[in-house]
Amino acid sequence: MGERAILVSEVGLRDGLQSIHSIVPTHVKMEWIRAEAAAGVREIEVGSFVPAKVLPQLADTAELVRFAATIPGLTVAALVPNLRGVQAAIAAGAHKITLPCSVSETHSLRNLRRTHAQIISEACAIGELLRATPEERRPHFEGSLSTAFGCTLEGAVPVGRVVRLAEQLMRAGCDEVGLADTSGYANPASVRSLIRDVRAAVGNDALTGIHLHNTRGLGLANVLAALDEGITTFDSSLGGLGGCPFAPGASGNVVTEDMCFMLSAMGLDTGIDLEALFDVRKILAAALPAEPLYGFSTLAGLPLGFRSHRPA
Amino acid sequence: MGERAILVSEVGLRDGLQSIHSIVPTHVKMEWIRAEAAAGVREIEVGSFVPAKVLPQLADTAELVRFAATIPGLTVAALVPNLRGVQAAIAAGAHKITLPCSVSETHSLRNLRRTHAQIISEACAIGELLRATPEERRPHFEGSLSTAFGCTLEGAVPVGRVVRLAEQLMRAGCDEVGLADTSGYANPASVRSLIRDVRAAVGNDALTGIHLHNTRGLGLANVLAALDEGITTFDSSLGGLGGCPFAPGASGNVVTEDMCFMLSAMGLDTGIDLEALFDVRKILAAALPAEPLYGFSTLAGLPLGFRSHRPA
Repeated sequence: MGERAILVSEVGLRDGLQSIHSIVPTHVKMEWIRAEAAAGVREIEVGSFVPAKVLPQLADTAELVRFAATIPGLTVAALVPNLRGVQAAIAAGAHKITLPCSVSETHSLRNLRRTHAQIISEACAIGELLRATPEERRPHFEGSLSTAFGCTLEGAVPVGRVVRLAEQLMRAGCDEVGLADTSGYANPASVRSLIRDVRAAVGNDALTGIHLHNTRGLGLANVLAALDEGITTFDSSLGGLGGCPFAPGASGNVVTEDMCFMLSAMGLDTGIDLEALFDVRKILAAALPAEPLYGFSTLAGLPLGFRSHRPA
Repeated sequence: MGERAILVSEVGLRDGLQSIHSIVPTHVKMEWIRAEAAAGVREIEVGSFVPAKVLPQLADTAELVRFAATIPGLTVAALVPNLRGVQAAIAAGAHKITLPCSVSETHSLRNLRRTHAQIISEACAIGELLRATPEERRPHFEGSLSTAFGCTLEGAVPVGRVVRLAEQLMRAGCDEVGLADTSGYANPASVRSLIRDVRAAVGNDALTGIHLHNTRGLGLANVLAALDEGITTFDSSLGGLGGCPFAPGASGNVVTEDMCFMLSAMGLDTGIDLEALFDVRKILAAALPAEPLYGFSTLAGLPLGFRSHRPA
């Protein structure tokens, strides 16, 4: 399989913490970011530029972006719900911004209080702002198609609608789109076929990342399916923290530790030191003693004689 | 993907219960077998013909084989450690017998107290007995290559040794060999390459089944990898019960419920009614209140609008 490079994008600080009521202090989040970057993780979504009254857990996002941007080699990502969020993200120095667009319009209305037309229009305004932003401050703009594999409120979503929204987001000015299995409805067959269908419409370079959950235990099988299709960026959450507070039953991100173990065992290059990564759990366990931390490889330990890839 | 048929082989009554100290009453095991067969599971390994003093939990194996053989359409499997076990399995009416042969000789000595040469010689004696057994009473003879992907005692095991043992087992009279990831050391890349290597030596028809664990969370990803290689029989355990008591840290079979959900969601035909299967957990939960039952799909429930395949 050789040394194909895979980018692991840690989303626990955003997707994990937004679903937890207790507020993790900013200095603990910084410790988490610092430790995970030191373990070799090269992209971290540190928060979301939503109003503090909606998600008080993420109120320190701007401060975290500014902090994380000082770590050499780290891509600092943030979720942005709208144009105002993008302005804040640019001001803080984010390298990558992600605008969620839920394929299920019911979920979109509950989550972002917006119709598809309103989100596409917001994406156009963001695209315009970015084109007017000097290149050295312009973040990479991703449109994330959440509930792309189905939704707890609507059930199955039509593939044609996913493809159409992907095309509209690209026309609006996104650099790329991502597929997100917000509700844990994906399976390896649907992962493979949806990637093919969306890539056929927007091109391979416009779909390189996927955001999978482990709601029904299929997280890593779905990662493998996406890997086989040539996806190179995988979102995951340390300890499997989180889900979506607006999609009932949608708990459980893919566990960063198990995913990195799998990728490393397969001979893929993530640049991550597994032992150091496993150690970052201690920060979470101490900060969130009441939260269950998922993951099997950390419990079982690495196989005897296993050699983890060490960051160069 | 069409309606490719997959055989799910439930091993919880053997691989699950052998690692649990409490003894489940025979009538409860019968209830479990009956309920899982009624849910559409077409193969169940009901126990192991080891001496009762070694594994008192499985002392009722002969009685369970006789009972299970009365269920129409069910293939009744049993583990056999030696020739004497095969005689007992035939007397009870087992349809399939599995002789474990651990690729790690250290594990083999601890688990079966036998060297490779002794196991191959036992396999030859079993092959001879089977050839002399009338066809209507002759069980299907599988040689299971345990620790085929690595071992907690030896670490990595050489592929050449797996292939050589597979060839020796086939020459000894096995109808087929199986690959078993006793210690949870497999990853999707090693699953794919080992299946190819062993099939290249013994032929595709002589390797149709795999026994995977979820020790490091990779169980279903490994199932997917094996599925892609054309494997059609998958061992798993209800609630992920079990592991191997002789391989430290090797807890966690692949969870039957999650695996069946994945296969069904992918459009593969297992003949299993998922709702009925999920209900069988109640029997385990009542009989083994202190044991953790694994599985995510049962907690999250089936996706909205999901249609489970119903047995014909």
